[in-house]
Amino acid sequence: MTYEEAWARYLETVNEGLAAYSFSAVGGTCREAMRYSLLSPGKRLRGILCLAAAESAGGSEAALPCAMALEMVHAYSLIHDDLPAMDNDTLRRGKPTNHVVYGEAMAILAGDGLLTEAFSCLASIGDDALAGKLTRVLSRAAGAGGMVGGQALDIENASPGDWEALRRMEALKTGCLICAAVEMGLTAAQADKELMEAGRQYGENLGLAFQLIDDILDVRGSREAMGKTPGKDAQEGKTTAVSILGLEGALQAAQRATEEAVSSLGPFGGRGVFLQEIARHMLSRVS
Amino acid sequence: MTYEEAWARYLETVNEGLAAYSFSAVGGTCREAMRYSLLSPGKRLRGILCLAAAESAGGSEAALPCAMALEMVHAYSLIHDDLPAMDNDTLRRGKPTNHVVYGEAMAILAGDGLLTEAFSCLASIGDDALAGKLTRVLSRAAGAGGMVGGQALDIENASPGDWEALRRMEALKTGCLICAAVEMGLTAAQADKELMEAGRQYGENLGLAFQLIDDILDVRGSREAMGKTPGKDAQEGKTTAVSILGLEGALQAAQRATEEAVSSLGPFGGRGVFLQEIARHMLSRVS
Repeated sequence: MTYEEAWARYLETVNEGLAAYSFSAVGGTCREAMRYSLLSPGKRLRGILCLAAAESAGGSEAALPCAMALEMVHAYSLIHDDLPAMDNDTLRRGKPTNHVVYGEAMAILAGDGLLTEAFSCLASIGDDALAGKLTRVLSRAAGAGGMVGGQALDIENASPGDWEALRRMEALKTGCLICAAVEMGLTAAQADKELMEAGRQYGENLGLAFQLIDDILDVRGSREAMGKTPGKDAQEGKTTAVSILGLEGALQAAQRATEEAVSSLGPFGGRGVFLQEIARHMLSRVS
Repeated sequence: MTYEEAWARYLETVNEGLAAYSFSAVGGTCREAMRYSLLSPGKRLRGILCLAAAESAGGSEAALPCAMALEMVHAYSLIHDDLPAMDNDTLRRGKPTNHVVYGEAMAILAGDGLLTEAFSCLASIGDDALAGKLTRVLSRAAGAGGMVGGQALDIENASPGDWEALRRMEALKTGCLICAAVEMGLTAAQADKELMEAGRQYGENLGLAFQLIDDILDVRGSREAMGKTPGKDAQEGKTTAVSILGLEGALQAAQRATEEAVSSLGPFGGRGVFLQEIARHMLSRVS
């Protein structure tokens, strides 16, 4: 199976799982608003990483609910980030954002509902001890010590002057959930300590590479490739990896992070190939 | 110990637990905004119900983290409900609301952070299987099939014309979390099926009585007693239990719900007395 075929298979698994998911939501607009954002076509990077990580450690039926929970958290974060009080975005992947369609109040609730549903999804796995462990990983990565904390730092200090401060903020805002995707997949598959530690290193470096590549694409990417308005960061005067390191420096950093991610997968042997390919293909978008 | 002494003891336990809680939040304003609302003096009804329910079934060390998680969810819901896009309230219990102090963006994030932290709090209990069970109860009660769903119905249809529609909406919006408080306390204490079922009936009726009493107080209560502007519902043309059933009808319904709540506690024997007293004292505010 080629990389593209394997990716497409994982993508289909995530999308079918989400489409078939029976929301605990009462009927009406809230359920519709939640599904609008959750089922809107996306890369599904977090869900796919989770499934692939689980498979690299022997596989697990619990991986799909984990992947779905991750995509619910990601979808909620986009809804809230797009709100007028936050980034005030009206388009997301070429479609009107949630609050443009359903109004601000319903968008806030749709986000709240998706975040809560993510934990319901984990709790329905059918193995309470595993659900408890997964709840710990996801809540730490998504909360104020992770993604929400990074977003808050971003709001408070939109332009950290140095690379270390920016890197820390981005690691919280984006890296934590990417890393959690790998960790949840491995946890679902009951991976041993060595694989778990290797997976964490991979996840951290992949998260860093992801952010660097995103910043590079923002400078030179096209609207089509990104699904958002390119150059927006620069227009808003935000510091990015590119504005601090320069285009060449950011690219070199992305290459280093990708190499680190790839080499940290050693303990997985041949089973880690697809995860390595994910990292390499991400980098290939800019190099 | 008198009822008031027992209440004060539980209240202190909840407040001390929350004050000592080590937030996973990164430093800065987000953590401050989360603590501002969480530690602002409140009745702590949900936390106290949880502790009392656990004690009525033999007690459990896991009850306090449950109580704290419930108060985190309650605090987040108030922050988001108060937002300009929602109820647009500037005062809550006599203090400026979260977004008035920290701005709208940070208030949204503080709410998101508290909701996520509630699950981190459960996941840190030290018994993963119990944490998984508790995650299931809390996420169902708080999500789009519970509290968030009720709030969404409230926004969509602010004035349901009949009592059954209003009652259903209020049961989701307020009743679910009150019921979950009892259920989580009993789950923490490993209560058997009979107690669990009795506790659920108690919780549902208490939730209903709570809402009826709140509506009655809104009509005739004082600002001091309520911590919010009385008569606001009527000013906004919202239907309430009182506008549909009349003051006397609402009072009778509250009395019936309270009696149901009290009598459903039979299986607890003498250990259920404090829970019964909670229901009776709630009613005594209006009768």
